[in-house]
Amino acid sequence: MRTVYHEKLAQLADQLSRLCSLTGAAIEHATGALLHADPAAAEQTITDYRHIEALCTHAEECAIALLALQQPVAGELRSIVSWMQIVADVDRMGALAAHVAEIVLQRHPNHVLPTEVEHHFAEMGRVAHELAQSAQEVLATRDPDKAARIRDQDDEMDGLHRQLYTALMDRDWTHGVPAAVDLALLARFYERFADHAVEIGRRVVFQVTGTRLPEQAVGTH
Amino acid sequence: MRTVYHEKLAQLADQLSRLCSLTGAAIEHATGALLHADPAAAEQTITDYRHIEALCTHAEECAIALLALQQPVAGELRSIVSWMQIVADVDRMGALAAHVAEIVLQRHPNHVLPTEVEHHFAEMGRVAHELAQSAQEVLATRDPDKAARIRDQDDEMDGLHRQLYTALMDRDWTHGVPAAVDLALLARFYERFADHAVEIGRRVVFQVTGTRLPEQAVGTH
Repeated sequence: MRTVYHEKLAQLADQLSRLCSLTGAAIEHATGALLHADPAAAEQTITDYRHIEALCTHAEECAIALLALQQPVAGELRSIVSWMQIVADVDRMGALAAHVAEIVLQRHPNHVLPTEVEHHFAEMGRVAHELAQSAQEVLATRDPDKAARIRDQDDEMDGLHRQLYTALMDRDWTHGVPAAVDLALLARFYERFADHAVEIGRRVVFQVTGTRLPEQAVGTH
Repeated sequence: MRTVYHEKLAQLADQLSRLCSLTGAAIEHATGALLHADPAAAEQTITDYRHIEALCTHAEECAIALLALQQPVAGELRSIVSWMQIVADVDRMGALAAHVAEIVLQRHPNHVLPTEVEHHFAEMGRVAHELAQSAQEVLATRDPDKAARIRDQDDEMDGLHRQLYTALMDRDWTHGVPAAVDLALLARFYERFADHAVEIGRRVVFQVTGTRLPEQAVGTH
């Protein structure tokens, strides 16, 4: 019973690690779609998300099967519950990548990004992809130090997010309201994607050490 | 064992029903704060959320205790898992109400809303509050028909959301970029609040009937 349990737990960790890598690919495709106003890359992102969604449903079933196998020991139950929460984070990361792609498709054949913020979104895409990779590594290695450091990587995203808002709020913004509205929402999608990667790090720290890192502060909407 | 289990399940349903009512109060306070540029109401909303957050942590503990009590019967496990997902929805609804309040505080003493969209946000606030009430009723009564109808109520929110975007994207918009960016984000917070109420309805339908209603379509970011 114990052996089957540990085998299935390792399989679940492996599934989720691979899912993080798929969300990394999805946000990379979404960013490519955005930078090049490329509808094929946008469609690819939405296909990526459908795939992620199906794998998340499967991973959730695996976590439920683990609960059914598991003796009711409080600590281990909490750990399995946190696996299910990681599934929800990964699913949401995929959905956010798809939201970026949908804006690209809605505006096609127009470019969503004014040239001057292209670099900015390329950076947000790079950081989002790195965060997904870090979450993947943390799920594979279960290294709590690396997990706790995901939050530092997220500071870079928060900085990019703030800079973009400053640019949008500036009197010198010349690209009008519709572009600003799109960019504000896009920036929010990238920021939320990053937040979920941070949450995955927090949950792995909890699984490994039993300690909960403080939550992200209210105020970072 | 069974009796303790059913008692604890009823307590959990009751806790979550009351939590929905608190999220309804939180979004009402947030909307009041927004309409009257009232920092006290905004602070109240953030206090509401802290309270909701603590109660959600407690509800999650209760769900874990139920898992520990529960015989590993697949159908019931799925039901308890969906209770935990409802806790996450309620927590997120509280966080979204707090996000509305934070924008009010950031802009204080200025009004966030131009006069001409006040009515629009009053309506979004009303619908969000009604959705929280419906979720509360559904958790209390476990009526699957009422649960399925939450989605219809959400159509009203989607309509308000679309109308606001149309107004923001219009050439006649005279309130500039910063106001438009705030309004776009606020509208997104209300829309996501409503989405979580719909999710609660879907989860109750699943708990009661074992059937999953189709998910909300990708494309309604």
